[in-house]
Amino acid sequence: MRAEILSVGTELLVGSIVNTNAQYVSRRLAEHAVDVYRQVTVGDNAGRLVECLREAASRADLIVTSGGLGPTEDDVTVSAVAKALGKRLVVDRLTLERLRRRVKNRGLKMTKLLERQCRVPEGAIVFKNHHGTAPGTLSEWRRGRRSTWILSLPGPPREMEPMFEEALPRWKREARAPDEAFVIRSVRLAEVLESQVAPKVGDLLRRKPPVTVGIYAHGGEVELKIMSKHKNARRAAAEADKIEARIRRIFGKDVFGTDGDTLASVVGGLLRKKGATLAASESCTGGLFASLVTDMPGSSDYFLGAAVAYANEVKSAVLGVPAGLLRRHGAVSGPVAAALAVGACRKFSADYGVGITGVAGPSGGSPGKPVGWVHFAIAERGRVVVRDRHLFLEKTRAEIKARAARRALDILRRVLLSSK
Amino acid sequence: MRAEILSVGTELLVGSIVNTNAQYVSRRLAEHAVDVYRQVTVGDNAGRLVECLREAASRADLIVTSGGLGPTEDDVTVSAVAKALGKRLVVDRLTLERLRRRVKNRGLKMTKLLERQCRVPEGAIVFKNHHGTAPGTLSEWRRGRRSTWILSLPGPPREMEPMFEEALPRWKREARAPDEAFVIRSVRLAEVLESQVAPKVGDLLRRKPPVTVGIYAHGGEVELKIMSKHKNARRAAAEADKIEARIRRIFGKDVFGTDGDTLASVVGGLLRKKGATLAASESCTGGLFASLVTDMPGSSDYFLGAAVAYANEVKSAVLGVPAGLLRRHGAVSGPVAAALAVGACRKFSADYGVGITGVAGPSGGSPGKPVGWVHFAIAERGRVVVRDRHLFLEKTRAEIKARAARRALDILRRVLLSSK
Repeated sequence: MRAEILSVGTELLVGSIVNTNAQYVSRRLAEHAVDVYRQVTVGDNAGRLVECLREAASRADLIVTSGGLGPTEDDVTVSAVAKALGKRLVVDRLTLERLRRRVKNRGLKMTKLLERQCRVPEGAIVFKNHHGTAPGTLSEWRRGRRSTWILSLPGPPREMEPMFEEALPRWKREARAPDEAFVIRSVRLAEVLESQVAPKVGDLLRRKPPVTVGIYAHGGEVELKIMSKHKNARRAAAEADKIEARIRRIFGKDVFGTDGDTLASVVGGLLRKKGATLAASESCTGGLFASLVTDMPGSSDYFLGAAVAYANEVKSAVLGVPAGLLRRHGAVSGPVAAALAVGACRKFSADYGVGITGVAGPSGGSPGKPVGWVHFAIAERGRVVVRDRHLFLEKTRAEIKARAARRALDILRRVLLSSK
Repeated sequence: MRAEILSVGTELLVGSIVNTNAQYVSRRLAEHAVDVYRQVTVGDNAGRLVECLREAASRADLIVTSGGLGPTEDDVTVSAVAKALGKRLVVDRLTLERLRRRVKNRGLKMTKLLERQCRVPEGAIVFKNHHGTAPGTLSEWRRGRRSTWILSLPGPPREMEPMFEEALPRWKREARAPDEAFVIRSVRLAEVLESQVAPKVGDLLRRKPPVTVGIYAHGGEVELKIMSKHKNARRAAAEADKIEARIRRIFGKDVFGTDGDTLASVVGGLLRKKGATLAASESCTGGLFASLVTDMPGSSDYFLGAAVAYANEVKSAVLGVPAGLLRRHGAVSGPVAAALAVGACRKFSADYGVGITGVAGPSGGSPGKPVGWVHFAIAERGRVVVRDRHLFLEKTRAEIKARAARRALDILRRVLLSSK
């Protein structure tokens, strides 16, 4: 099957935002063995959009549009799709009822403008928007023996992505797209370099279909992506299992999880299994470590709290870091990281305490302690068990914070794996 | 003048990478008042690329291609452009000499494959690649009275961007493109709905060029984007100023900033101007409020620290929230938010304290306090000045955290604007 992607939005054409939707949809279609031949971006202009839909339909079995479903006059996708299909626009009752409830719950009034969002091309399959108001639609466009499906999705990625996931199997069913099994499994390695990983799996990376392995690196993490295609789903999974087992044998503890696992989810699972609790004292990560931990549903089972101690006085007064230690070693030092970890254990009566202190930049660096320099410590029941330090070469403050917070999670993960 | 952007690369079509080149070129062309009507992405396929070049030439004065200039057989752009133009491929002497020197300096041997990279369409203006090997080219494509220019740039952003900057003025000169100025300015509104904003600026949204206004919503924020085009740069800015002033008159304090401003940067600026300090006590946002504040370079000037108090005992022991209050009202309540704000002020000796407590979900909700229900309080020098509460309808825990943290920033911003 062939698909084309049509992104709608003047903000894309003037370069205000980058088109991540085209990437997301392309990647997911590739994973379902659907070939994407073109991605096209057009502005909020109904005439040009209809023209693009006609061109794409002459080549593709599926057109995926994103954007232009909002309530304002700028939002032209729904009417352009209806025009191309030669259908009327009708109000979708379920969407209207849902919107009325939503508006009422917020104490607002229903307006004509809002109601515009409930219009869909007649006969379309309608997808509820779980993260916004504009619904998505799937319509078949028959021209003689040829048929093209148009799937229209909202523009904001958090609305678009889950709706796409719901719509894709529906389209495959409706269009009788061949259902090859395509197992994609990511094996995730933490705090390693791509250049260290690649040579150890050279033969895997050179594999040809039906089972291939790709390597991707981002933010201190390396992902080995196994793609296994087969007519039989069980067979596709078994092949992926074999490769995963080999990767785990090679890399041991460096593998922290697969697919949707994150360092925070894995650390949460280990703490829960142990029945242990966690607290943190953060300086340069400024609350990001705690925020990553608390992104996990149910983290209140093991996470007691954190102190974000930016000022030195706070490190002393709130966490009991001796003022002498701060004077002697400076706030960014191993001993202070250790005192922060112990302070977190004591202050919050936690089994495990994490201490992080460093220079997030852009200012505050010195020759001995440059921007990106971060000290870590982990305390177990009030005693320091691990100290570590690292120079992060990331450019921005936000990037250094992110790398440091993830590294702290990984150090804690390795401690939890080793301790009884 | 009208332009179209043609991105070449199968890695884009399978979604392995995101197309930042299209954004970069679009933004820069917009700033030079060149209208981009379409962005098209195609794979490494010569036939389809020639087809796309012909289509684009039928509409545009300028086609900017990126990618496909490398040495391998996958790199089809140069020959596709030559074919579309009806020109031979010739070896560019300067590029060849440069490549030979480069290869020699590295102690390598010149190969046929490398030499391929020196071929350009006959008659093209050639741009040296300062960050790689493949040169860029600019060619005029005359068909009767009509003329389209094709600018071919390499794919890697660090090669493409500087070459584009060199080529743009050259094209404007060669093509005698008018030298217009284009001012783009975003006016940002916090914690409002697009549907509340749109009706108040209906006439602005319906404006036709040269000065137009667009509306975009994301994550509780609404952006009004003014685009002002004029032959005279000062006049273009003055027109944008006028519209911005009108938007500010209509929405008052709801406007929190322009262009790259964020709630955290604006709050930071206000605190710095006052010489005031800030601390926070967070429950459901789990450190995210502190993390947003500390994303700002220089935030250590005004941010003292935060306590992430997940467990009730921590709320009492660390922040002095009376256990009776927790029992009587529950942790998610106005009185506890107020006690958290006051506790932050006292604990960290801060001028302003922020208290946030709520149900981030997915579990922990009850009929009276459903998932998404969040209480806020701001204390000024130990006294509560604002209490607020809100039901966030976002679905995931991470989304509810993000909305709540941003709302807390906005409430604080409004307090800082009001207080002397």
